[in-house]
Amino acid sequence: MLEIRQAAPSDWPAIWPIFQSVVADGATYAYDPDTTSDEALALWMSPAASTFVATHGGAVVGSYFLKPNQPGLGSHVANAAFMVSPAWSGHGAGRAMGEHALRTARARGYEAMQFNFVVSSNERAVSLWKSLGFATIGVIPKAYRHSRLGLVDAYIMHRFLNDILARDEAETV
Amino acid sequence: MLEIRQAAPSDWPAIWPIFQSVVADGATYAYDPDTTSDEALALWMSPAASTFVATHGGAVVGSYFLKPNQPGLGSHVANAAFMVSPAWSGHGAGRAMGEHALRTARARGYEAMQFNFVVSSNERAVSLWKSLGFATIGVIPKAYRHSRLGLVDAYIMHRFLNDILARDEAETV
Repeated sequence: MLEIRQAAPSDWPAIWPIFQSVVADGATYAYDPDTTSDEALALWMSPAASTFVATHGGAVVGSYFLKPNQPGLGSHVANAAFMVSPAWSGHGAGRAMGEHALRTARARGYEAMQFNFVVSSNERAVSLWKSLGFATIGVIPKAYRHSRLGLVDAYIMHRFLNDILARDEAETV
Repeated sequence: MLEIRQAAPSDWPAIWPIFQSVVADGATYAYDPDTTSDEALALWMSPAASTFVATHGGAVVGSYFLKPNQPGLGSHVANAAFMVSPAWSGHGAGRAMGEHALRTARARGYEAMQFNFVVSSNERAVSLWKSLGFATIGVIPKAYRHSRLGLVDAYIMHRFLNDILARDEAETV
């Protein structure tokens, strides 16, 4: 059974190998494949973000963060990023975290969620976000240097949250 | 005669009132109108960015920064942001800085430039970027809380740089 909870600083040693393996693949995130643990920690658990982990039997199998996509006058639109351990890919952890993020964002008063850089060849992610109600609102041509495919487009995806049931922050998943 | 040069840390006291007046208006940038000088300095002259000033008779009349829009595998697309002193609005400083930024980005090896958040009601900016070859590649609905108009859309604008003449970095404008 998957559980999703707020991450503590002590979770980083379990998140880091996931970050590292996802980024090393050079197929989904722009982060430099040589990003160090300290740099990744600053990105993934920044003070501006709320970071969560998905666990199974106590082991961290995925993580996501939620933060405003813009400061100040644009802070009502959320941004989020998700990583699943390659060993757990295809077992629903991404979808569970996505739903959790939408409900958490709604509970925190965000009005929409936006992804700025979904790699177009990442079919699993594109199809997941579409199934969760996101629309592609922009295509950035040749924005990503894919490790195997060369230059590929990135999608900007967006959805409003008014139809989402706010998560009670005390509830566990 | 307008000159554009790399900004030095000692330029900040001249850039800050421009930043402050532009942001206080709540019509063009997402930055919180209450952003402090230290916060603004960290945003505008961050280590990741190259910051420039436009001067007239030695006085700073505008500023822009240039930086990668994404890290690592997306770092071939530049991002830039521009501010002109309200007193100098409409005198060509924005256009001069825009052209300077395009030529500088090209010289530094960027392949494209992307603006993530052009407020749709900011007609002067939208029309300037279109005239400099940018296309609107996405519309973020209701993304900006405009101080007078309420929620307005933001545009994502983009152009490739292959047709731009690289600026000789020794050259002055």
